[in-house]
Amino acid sequence: MDYDTPLFFHVMEYAAGADRDVVDMVSGNPDWGSPDAISEGLHEYADLGGADFQYPPSEGLRELREEIAARRDVDQSQVVVTNGGGEANYLAMARALERERGSEFVLTDPVYPYYPGKTTMLGATARYVATDEDGSLDPEKVREAASEETAGIVVNTPNNPTGAVYDEETMRELVAIAEEYDALLVSDEVYDHFDFSGEFTSALSFDSENRVVTNSYSKTFAITGFRVGYAIFPESLVDVAKTRHMLTNVATTRPGQYAVLHALRNTDPAYYEANRELLEERVETFTAALDDAGADYSSPDGAFYVMARFPDYPGTLENVERLIDEAGVAGMPGEAFGESRTDWLRFALVSPRVEEAADRLADYFA
Amino acid sequence: MDYDTPLFFHVMEYAAGADRDVVDMVSGNPDWGSPDAISEGLHEYADLGGADFQYPPSEGLRELREEIAARRDVDQSQVVVTNGGGEANYLAMARALERERGSEFVLTDPVYPYYPGKTTMLGATARYVATDEDGSLDPEKVREAASEETAGIVVNTPNNPTGAVYDEETMRELVAIAEEYDALLVSDEVYDHFDFSGEFTSALSFDSENRVVTNSYSKTFAITGFRVGYAIFPESLVDVAKTRHMLTNVATTRPGQYAVLHALRNTDPAYYEANRELLEERVETFTAALDDAGADYSSPDGAFYVMARFPDYPGTLENVERLIDEAGVAGMPGEAFGESRTDWLRFALVSPRVEEAADRLADYFA
Repeated sequence: MDYDTPLFFHVMEYAAGADRDVVDMVSGNPDWGSPDAISEGLHEYADLGGADFQYPPSEGLRELREEIAARRDVDQSQVVVTNGGGEANYLAMARALERERGSEFVLTDPVYPYYPGKTTMLGATARYVATDEDGSLDPEKVREAASEETAGIVVNTPNNPTGAVYDEETMRELVAIAEEYDALLVSDEVYDHFDFSGEFTSALSFDSENRVVTNSYSKTFAITGFRVGYAIFPESLVDVAKTRHMLTNVATTRPGQYAVLHALRNTDPAYYEANRELLEERVETFTAALDDAGADYSSPDGAFYVMARFPDYPGTLENVERLIDEAGVAGMPGEAFGESRTDWLRFALVSPRVEEAADRLADYFA
Repeated sequence: MDYDTPLFFHVMEYAAGADRDVVDMVSGNPDWGSPDAISEGLHEYADLGGADFQYPPSEGLRELREEIAARRDVDQSQVVVTNGGGEANYLAMARALERERGSEFVLTDPVYPYYPGKTTMLGATARYVATDEDGSLDPEKVREAASEETAGIVVNTPNNPTGAVYDEETMRELVAIAEEYDALLVSDEVYDHFDFSGEFTSALSFDSENRVVTNSYSKTFAITGFRVGYAIFPESLVDVAKTRHMLTNVATTRPGQYAVLHALRNTDPAYYEANRELLEERVETFTAALDDAGADYSSPDGAFYVMARFPDYPGTLENVERLIDEAGVAGMPGEAFGESRTDWLRFALVSPRVEEAADRLADYFA
């Protein structure tokens, strides 16, 4: 086996081991804090003990599935509560292959590196469609890349790493292409609460037997460590996915499910809004400093990443480590996200010190 | 795809929906309560928030891996903290196949049904070795079943469903057979704290590059819903297993890991001992009633299940449902555990009402 280990953990370790103060903009770990109801929910759960500490239903706590189903306007039988968005994507991609309609995934370039990792792990192959420099995706290019060999098309909107948000027309076309080739569109929407454009459209907006939507509470509630997400499958595909979930993980952790359910029921909409506004401010601060540093970048429409290209400073792992040591700012090498971005670096705006990091970069590259 | 869904959840639902009082002896959900330190640990964790709510290292919290490594006398780099024993077995079996030394698993009959489920899901085939009626396993029969096609041998000791505990000589031979055929012995030892015989021997007792040990805190701490387990791989095999863990689940839930670590550090040995003694008493009570009912059974040496065969009452799903409705006792159909046990029923001794259940069975079959 030679599937690649995503680089995230390597860079995080390097930054943590550096001899100097480093602003960590590597991971997708939100720094803005969870809603109080997460902690309250865990406290409540901790006191239950006994039967409440035992196996939840494999597909997820009934009340949580009902809550998700009501919010997403689907039948609760279509919902599988997963070990984060990671397992949700694993189940969706495995399900696409199990349909035996092909063994190729159409992915974007740049790409979230877990998708090619999962592709290889599952014994499939990847075909890449380049996005525009601002991250927008032309569905016609996806159509050209699709074929009878296509098992699935995997997209992420709002997008990591580009910050692109696919509009309604793009999503409609992606669903249509999946139908044309009897493939499965896997739409990973874990950043759906971080749309600055108002253009975000879930793949669930289009009735289809050919799309799976994955999501997670990791970013929404700033609990990447809890591992609670979900996938919504068409009725015709959900049973086999539930079986794989059971045979892989038996069930998703119950303390986390309980806390998420409590938070869904008891979190004011102001929480989501405040975090989105915070991120919009950080985007402004950071991109202004990138202007000062003479960097290229696209201002993100959603999620919380900015890709930047500095003059004569390719986005290699070596250069990322140099930037940690010499500028005190840790980002991700663009090469981790595909061939089109080898000149770029990705910065996650998950630090209260975004302004400081921006100043450091402006100084370093000035 | 046609891999089977384990029957557990179906029978549990049927019992929950019955019109009468039912003693639930279906699941492996301990009823004796978690140590206080589990709840304390969760409370402590709930107050941490912020960075402590974010991704733990993919392979597990460092302190937890160190604690496990110290207790099992292995290097911490060999430990992967998993989403329960379920994921640990999934990683181990997938790792066996990834060695590309064969695509067959040698399993026992009776068998824990998740093993054949995983075998099929992973695209492999199963070859069964019958145990003796008391559940003991003759390594010579395993040797006869092994071949160049053998990717792995999967055993469970103490055993679910038979209650057998494999002794040192058996385990030594199983490791030797794995080495002879360059296969991987997967030794699932989740019931290691429930050995009544004193004969339990972990596969870790034998230095080998050909064995993986899986375990879980689900039974040890009565937290089947938390989903925290681990696998211990040989150094040469661990990296690829860690990559699969990352690509499947990203990481294991952090609240659960934190609570388990706290419980490992703060639980008196008396906790484990009291539960083992409780189970020994239940075995006595239950088997005495089986004598009264004219049933065949083997008294378990470990774990917390009893297989019983009643006169003219085959262990079908239909008969299990009839027993729920007519006797008020819910067990598992023996046919779920393999062809050799179609006449048998399995009862999990995870209810304070074991005596009542025993009386009901004795009355019903008298």
